[in-house]
Amino acid sequence: MQDDLMHLTASQLQERLQSRELSVAELAKACLERIEARDSAVRAWAHVDRELVLAQARELDRTLVRGPLHGLPIGIKDVILTKDMPTQYNSPIYRDSHPTMDAACVTILRAAGALILGKTTTVEFGATGRKPPTRNPHDLKRTPGGSSSGSAAAVADLHVPLALGTQTGGSIIRPASYCGVFAMKPTWNRVSNEGARRFSPSLDTIGWFARSAEDLALLFQVFDPDSSAHSIAEPHELRIGLYRPTAWGTTEQATQAALAAAEQRLRDAGVHVEELTLPSDFDALVDEHRLIMLTEARSSFLAEFRTHYELLHESFREQVENRNGYTYESLRAAYDHAAKCRSIFDRIAADFDAILAPSTVGEAPVGLADTGSFAFNGPWTLLHVPCINVPCYWTKDGLPVGLTLVGPRFSDERVLGTAVRIAMLFGIRDSARWRP
Amino acid sequence: MQDDLMHLTASQLQERLQSRELSVAELAKACLERIEARDSAVRAWAHVDRELVLAQARELDRTLVRGPLHGLPIGIKDVILTKDMPTQYNSPIYRDSHPTMDAACVTILRAAGALILGKTTTVEFGATGRKPPTRNPHDLKRTPGGSSSGSAAAVADLHVPLALGTQTGGSIIRPASYCGVFAMKPTWNRVSNEGARRFSPSLDTIGWFARSAEDLALLFQVFDPDSSAHSIAEPHELRIGLYRPTAWGTTEQATQAALAAAEQRLRDAGVHVEELTLPSDFDALVDEHRLIMLTEARSSFLAEFRTHYELLHESFREQVENRNGYTYESLRAAYDHAAKCRSIFDRIAADFDAILAPSTVGEAPVGLADTGSFAFNGPWTLLHVPCINVPCYWTKDGLPVGLTLVGPRFSDERVLGTAVRIAMLFGIRDSARWRP
Repeated sequence: MQDDLMHLTASQLQERLQSRELSVAELAKACLERIEARDSAVRAWAHVDRELVLAQARELDRTLVRGPLHGLPIGIKDVILTKDMPTQYNSPIYRDSHPTMDAACVTILRAAGALILGKTTTVEFGATGRKPPTRNPHDLKRTPGGSSSGSAAAVADLHVPLALGTQTGGSIIRPASYCGVFAMKPTWNRVSNEGARRFSPSLDTIGWFARSAEDLALLFQVFDPDSSAHSIAEPHELRIGLYRPTAWGTTEQATQAALAAAEQRLRDAGVHVEELTLPSDFDALVDEHRLIMLTEARSSFLAEFRTHYELLHESFREQVENRNGYTYESLRAAYDHAAKCRSIFDRIAADFDAILAPSTVGEAPVGLADTGSFAFNGPWTLLHVPCINVPCYWTKDGLPVGLTLVGPRFSDERVLGTAVRIAMLFGIRDSARWRP
Repeated sequence: MQDDLMHLTASQLQERLQSRELSVAELAKACLERIEARDSAVRAWAHVDRELVLAQARELDRTLVRGPLHGLPIGIKDVILTKDMPTQYNSPIYRDSHPTMDAACVTILRAAGALILGKTTTVEFGATGRKPPTRNPHDLKRTPGGSSSGSAAAVADLHVPLALGTQTGGSIIRPASYCGVFAMKPTWNRVSNEGARRFSPSLDTIGWFARSAEDLALLFQVFDPDSSAHSIAEPHELRIGLYRPTAWGTTEQATQAALAAAEQRLRDAGVHVEELTLPSDFDALVDEHRLIMLTEARSSFLAEFRTHYELLHESFREQVENRNGYTYESLRAAYDHAAKCRSIFDRIAADFDAILAPSTVGEAPVGLADTGSFAFNGPWTLLHVPCINVPCYWTKDGLPVGLTLVGPRFSDERVLGTAVRIAMLFGIRDSARWRP
């Protein structure tokens, strides 16, 4: 029975919870059992307090007023503060550290009735440095991607229907692609990152993982002060720009196949698909993203550098000491050029319901030491645009490869609507179990 | 004796503390006595724990390794987290709220040996809404300015030599001008604002107050990973651009007099002074700043809006509900235009050691309900540029009016060096007591 429950998406669970057909405690127990059964293999969780979860579930069952997320279990990346659980950042400096406050996004989740199930593993500080022990549920020898490793793996392995992550480079979209789940990085600053660890404030963005496009929209509505409805275009009204970046990285066979298959399916469904090029200006965005991220990191990790030098991973010392030798002049140039590209991209992308691009260069690499390339994610993060990973392709070895839907800044609703439509066209019902 | 001590600047106290001529406990007691004597009138403090301060002072006296700020008392604006004191944001929602973590800037201060003296008053959330009861030490009937009201007043009234603030509109430079103290808003993101309350992340900046330009540099060096030395140009080498904004606001008589007096003094000292105009493009920055600030505030206050609607000041409800009717399209346009102006301003300002501009339209207004206009501060905050308030003018009624030194992004060191030189030229030794 629990296994059946765990196959339901958040939207499906929501119906049963709202109608009281399903109790929150029952669902919480099912999640905890699934975690107990699976997490010794997957290792997606940094902290789960079984008694706390069950107590909060029972409390939610007693609540009369039911929010839109009433009783829905959600994992929180362990770089986001939770008042009743430790926040450890996968850093020995913060082992068992437990500041008694919730991040703004956690407060909003709780106010909507969500059940915080625990803290999911992360690359150190959601940035560089130490990798978590988390494994890809589709092949335990492979990385789930990072830095939101645990959130992606937990959703993919049916531990929870929803999880929060953060993205500064490719920390949401990359693990979603490798783990075969839906994920959304909204427009920069559309969701408050108060209480989420700072890495590079021009880039840091809160986002989330789910097993359906509808579930992404469910969370977006909770985080959006407007909570406007999202229209879903008919296939023949859809205009998709297909972007095969050449200068950002080299796609491997799996990603090429994913793009080709998606293009074919879209055309077959009567969708208008148009090959897109971006001005050669955009070639520089990969390097500029890296420069901005690592230069802003200098102030982000100065406190730990001064107080816990020995416990801070070498990569952060490099950043604070600026061993790359980046100059403020090059930082200014990168800021200004990125701003110019944002404006250009918004105009180009406005002609489409979404732009379809690779999420990752290929499927998840073997081994846990390398969480893969984020070359196809960094430029979008720098452009501040909404991105959704659609888990639309599986290799013959059963490994997922996602594609990214992108839109202009603040077109989150439109990109979500497009993701819902494309998921329907592709017949993706439950992404973690879906195979073509 | 204590009164004499309280007249010393941080740099002067630093010498005595490093040589052990003065103990930290002795200095802490002097601050606490001054606060006890004066704060019923000035009301600069939201929280001071006498026993905690004395215990930490004694602990610092026992420490062998002495950091650059060893024993220097500093006030922390009550929107910045402190692990051992409440952080209340001047919001009834957070009355006696006490998250057990330090903001990154507080960690850095403690690591440098600073003594955290307490939390200083603020306008609600360092933003809009409820004003603190703080009064201007130079005229108790007047506002000290805001939102860093307590930090400016505490430094001006000799309670502490140093204090931290935050600026999103004019929350550092404006109260510094009204209270007659030095203050610095560094380049955006040069200091981590992790653990400082979010209002508008494109604008939010950590800065500080002091009673000498050297003291500003002392703190900058602690927050700067490079800790490079700042050269101080000779007067005849200095190039100052004088900027009298016409479109941003109307200067009152006191500010006009301050600008005229400063120009005369600089010319008399052999400084090259050049009247500066900025392209008419820059006229829009006041409105664009407001639009960006209030639109980004939507996500910043959504958590409290959802959980404590009745306790949140009306102004924040207006922001979350977007009663101004700002569109995301206008937000994008404002982002892109501001980015363009940043690039233009950096090129123009690169010809000067600093640009001299008004800090406020005039002296502090009468009454505590209005913390004054930030029309002359918002555009610089939006341009991300370093700003230093120089308390260089006093009206015949004994009210201070400051001027702002501004430079291109990341020219913080050069602007600091210029401030030190100008303070010398103007004979400003101890700003709170200095009169022309």
